[in-house]
Amino acid sequence: MLYLYGNYAGDNMNFDIAAEMAADEGIEVKTVRVWDDVASAPPGRIQDRRGIAGDLFVIKVAGGAAATLDTLGEVYRVASKARDHVRSMGVAVAAGSIPETGEPTFELPEDEIEIGMGLHGEPGVSREKLLPADPLVEKMMGKILPDLPFAGGDEVALLVNDLGSTTMMELLIVNRRVRQILRDKGIRVHDTVIGSYCTCQEMAGFSITLLKLDDELKKYYDLPARSLGFVKG
Amino acid sequence: MLYLYGNYAGDNMNFDIAAEMAADEGIEVKTVRVWDDVASAPPGRIQDRRGIAGDLFVIKVAGGAAATLDTLGEVYRVASKARDHVRSMGVAVAAGSIPETGEPTFELPEDEIEIGMGLHGEPGVSREKLLPADPLVEKMMGKILPDLPFAGGDEVALLVNDLGSTTMMELLIVNRRVRQILRDKGIRVHDTVIGSYCTCQEMAGFSITLLKLDDELKKYYDLPARSLGFVKG
Repeated sequence: MLYLYGNYAGDNMNFDIAAEMAADEGIEVKTVRVWDDVASAPPGRIQDRRGIAGDLFVIKVAGGAAATLDTLGEVYRVASKARDHVRSMGVAVAAGSIPETGEPTFELPEDEIEIGMGLHGEPGVSREKLLPADPLVEKMMGKILPDLPFAGGDEVALLVNDLGSTTMMELLIVNRRVRQILRDKGIRVHDTVIGSYCTCQEMAGFSITLLKLDDELKKYYDLPARSLGFVKG
Repeated sequence: MLYLYGNYAGDNMNFDIAAEMAADEGIEVKTVRVWDDVASAPPGRIQDRRGIAGDLFVIKVAGGAAATLDTLGEVYRVASKARDHVRSMGVAVAAGSIPETGEPTFELPEDEIEIGMGLHGEPGVSREKLLPADPLVEKMMGKILPDLPFAGGDEVALLVNDLGSTTMMELLIVNRRVRQILRDKGIRVHDTVIGSYCTCQEMAGFSITLLKLDDELKKYYDLPARSLGFVKG
């Protein structure tokens, strides 16, 4: 059994307990924690980073691997490689709400943006003055690209993800500048996914995710998939 | 050439002018206006109704027909039939905004819902007190079902559409009650589409659309389609 989830203290604790219980029953468990959010900790402490929209790409690749490969060890190896090849960053202009109370999970002044929120609406790691889309995307790409690093000649899958109430029109404005920056760096985009995939209620914002592909990751990424929230091929 | 669009005064005027200009150049034009919103005018004045999310199903069927059939007349006939078989209704708890100003297109008290908004954020046709999801869906289905009417033995495609910032979780709560009501009436759901398809910025609300299928409509509905906002098959 493969446990694949975003890196948060509560998730870690509960999945670890579940893994022990499974082991007691003789079920072999491997764990892959996604920690793609470059805003949440520096490169030297990558295992302290949160898992955000990069989850989507890691789960997609792991699903393709699980449908194809024979052993848990092999699926674990491919899922870990996908996790190690993915980087993301998110910003929000307004928080989502807690379903039970309708209250926002954090408060944000009109002219500020929140950087590096958690996947469940946790407050971000810093605040900055609101910027127009193009310079904001430049700033985010300036964090994401050197982190892996992504370099000229690389091939990537790109996810421009709505955090909850950002419109397709706005996501396309983001995508436009991301594509320009990637083209200028000589990074080829193998596939682009744009829409509402990793959301926190009606949080207003977006994230950018890049997955660096090699032949193996591309093979599992490209396999068809069908689910309520994601369709491929 | 087939002009296929929602029934709004401005669209009608501009498409009619375009049709005259096309005719002057010898291009044959047929027009199908979608008027699926049961809230916007009574059954006796169906041509006064607005086009809302039913657009999606009519465009899907018309696209399938255009890819298959040889003459404009035949595509027009199938698109018109799809239009005549579709009914929708929408509600919102908060308006979307105008991109240029960020201002909401209408104001709504905390405890009220707006019924029958236009596709571009136009104010609705009435207001009611906020209701929990189940009785609200019952009320909406009570307007949609008798309008065509949809009856036991019918087969439908169902669209539960987010108007902009309604979450998948909330749409699924709506879908649950819609499916119960359809099952109780003996109406079979051939296909279900749930998500953000016809939106007005971050408008908070949803719409329910039913398309009654016969063998011909089902054939064109089921054909694969691939676009930025909609993928099928």
